[in-house]
Amino acid sequence: MNKTPQEQFMLEAISLSSHGMINNEGGPFGCVIVKNNMIIGRGHNKVISTNDPTAHAEIVAIRDACQHLGAFQLDGCQLYTSCEPCPMCLGAIYWARPEKVFYACTRSDAAQIGFDDHFIYEEIMSDQQQRKLPMKQLLRSEALKVFSSWSAKSDKTFY
Amino acid sequence: MNKTPQEQFMLEAISLSSHGMINNEGGPFGCVIVKNNMIIGRGHNKVISTNDPTAHAEIVAIRDACQHLGAFQLDGCQLYTSCEPCPMCLGAIYWARPEKVFYACTRSDAAQIGFDDHFIYEEIMSDQQQRKLPMKQLLRSEALKVFSSWSAKSDKTFY
Repeated sequence: MNKTPQEQFMLEAISLSSHGMINNEGGPFGCVIVKNNMIIGRGHNKVISTNDPTAHAEIVAIRDACQHLGAFQLDGCQLYTSCEPCPMCLGAIYWARPEKVFYACTRSDAAQIGFDDHFIYEEIMSDQQQRKLPMKQLLRSEALKVFSSWSAKSDKTFY
Repeated sequence: MNKTPQEQFMLEAISLSSHGMINNEGGPFGCVIVKNNMIIGRGHNKVISTNDPTAHAEIVAIRDACQHLGAFQLDGCQLYTSCEPCPMCLGAIYWARPEKVFYACTRSDAAQIGFDDHFIYEEIMSDQQQRKLPMKQLLRSEALKVFSSWSAKSDKTFY
């Protein structure tokens, strides 16, 4: 059966998920980023091979696509990921601002094979005092001085 | 007045936040990661200078510290950030697993100077159907085959 362009892009993301897993680079996750019907960024999970806990497929693909575009935003792009993004990657997607996200497996599917993104979703949605991760505030007034300098800065770039 | 070691580490994170801003590398955010009372990772926001929307201070510092350790986890480490982490960075922190987080400014302080992490928190906490970002599922059964291969894989590393 003929595949739609969207299905073909997703198959490429799934192919990357398999490739990285077979090479022991990380978990079974892949991602491609498309603009004007061309793939402009690719990524698969490289947490193990690069000792980088942030090297999830989506983050790797976003960085790759942004280098390709020479821009820090994915204007007019679609992101195809072989699994529903974890909170880190979903946050990265919001900062990168693609126009649409396609995903294949769900976060429940990921939990079934041992990746408990669900725990992180729960934690992020919890009040700070309820989280398992201890967080403590320190020296706010010192840091606010730098924020004031940012506000007063005339040559700043927003992102 | 004498500073505690914790305050000294936070002052270093704040100093990095100022440094990066003055050099037009990105927003006014800095981070250091400490293990056994030594700084083992540093980062400041480099979104603008590297065209990388994921180059927030915490992500940069986590990657730096993990390279230093040769590991994908921050066992026994403390993370000091000049501002409460955005959802992307908080997710990254959960994956990296430091034992404690210290922050100076709050997400409300960040919103005051134009960084609306609040919007991303709202979106991540919303049901997918309610989000501003369109998300669509595609080819789950194809991607699940790779998940099954992962489950059956005997030489995998968990992270």
